[in-house]
Amino acid sequence: MEQNAQTCSRTLAATDRQYMHLAYEQALKSYREGGIPVGAIMVEEDRVIAAGHNRRVQDNDPLAHGEIDCIRKCGRRTRYGGVTLYTTLSPCMMCAGTIVQLGVSRVVVGENRNYKGYMQLLIDCGVGVELLDDEACRELMSEFIDRNPGLWDEDVSGKV
Amino acid sequence: MEQNAQTCSRTLAATDRQYMHLAYEQALKSYREGGIPVGAIMVEEDRVIAAGHNRRVQDNDPLAHGEIDCIRKCGRRTRYGGVTLYTTLSPCMMCAGTIVQLGVSRVVVGENRNYKGYMQLLIDCGVGVELLDDEACRELMSEFIDRNPGLWDEDVSGKV
Repeated sequence: MEQNAQTCSRTLAATDRQYMHLAYEQALKSYREGGIPVGAIMVEEDRVIAAGHNRRVQDNDPLAHGEIDCIRKCGRRTRYGGVTLYTTLSPCMMCAGTIVQLGVSRVVVGENRNYKGYMQLLIDCGVGVELLDDEACRELMSEFIDRNPGLWDEDVSGKV
Repeated sequence: MEQNAQTCSRTLAATDRQYMHLAYEQALKSYREGGIPVGAIMVEEDRVIAAGHNRRVQDNDPLAHGEIDCIRKCGRRTRYGGVTLYTTLSPCMMCAGTIVQLGVSRVVVGENRNYKGYMQLLIDCGVGVELLDDEACRELMSEFIDRNPGLWDEDVSGKV
């Protein structure tokens, strides 16, 4: 029983890392477009239902964080129970509030070293949260912040 | 001194009601388009800098609440201190999180009887909050909810 639980946990972790890689590809795509490298995907019943990335620069949209762009791409629906959102960076207060408001069940976070974010708010509101501390996500974000401190400051309204 | 403070307070209240009427006109515009009647405007140094309304129906955008549409219309900026946001309805968790994240200084709310919202979260996070309990805002929202319970449920993800 314990072995089964361990196997299941290892499988879930491997699946989470595979999905996180898709979110990372979204982040990298944004970075190569000259934008902010935060990417996100949404998964339901082991199927990717939406993908997106930060579009502040690309669309001149101050609210288009990676999570927001991804949820918009998902389109209109009445409920989000059973949906897992993968995001390369820990969500800000806007994105955390959006996740809680919609009732997204679970959030997998690539990293929170470059930006602490509001993972605890998600947990307090009953959202399942997993932190991968993914090296690729960390390094991409760190490189971006070093090279674009002004744009990064704008994207988090100085709340670093 | 006390009389001056009272006069100032009355003037502020009158100004708030005038600006709220502009937010109400946005809500009414949305309703007449077949959309959800929540409107918002942003004011800085006694000047309207942006106006918007819910666009879930009009743009098929699940995140385009009135406050979100208005902030998007305002465009990119680095800081929001000194900005007052007027919204016809008490903000949901997404909109409250967005207001806190951006550092909007003050929020004036038309009404919170049809939807309680997260005014307390704003207050706890240091945002100045004023509730007008405006009759026109209340009646428009109440009429919409009575006629469109499904659409209303979708817009607040069942969190009424």
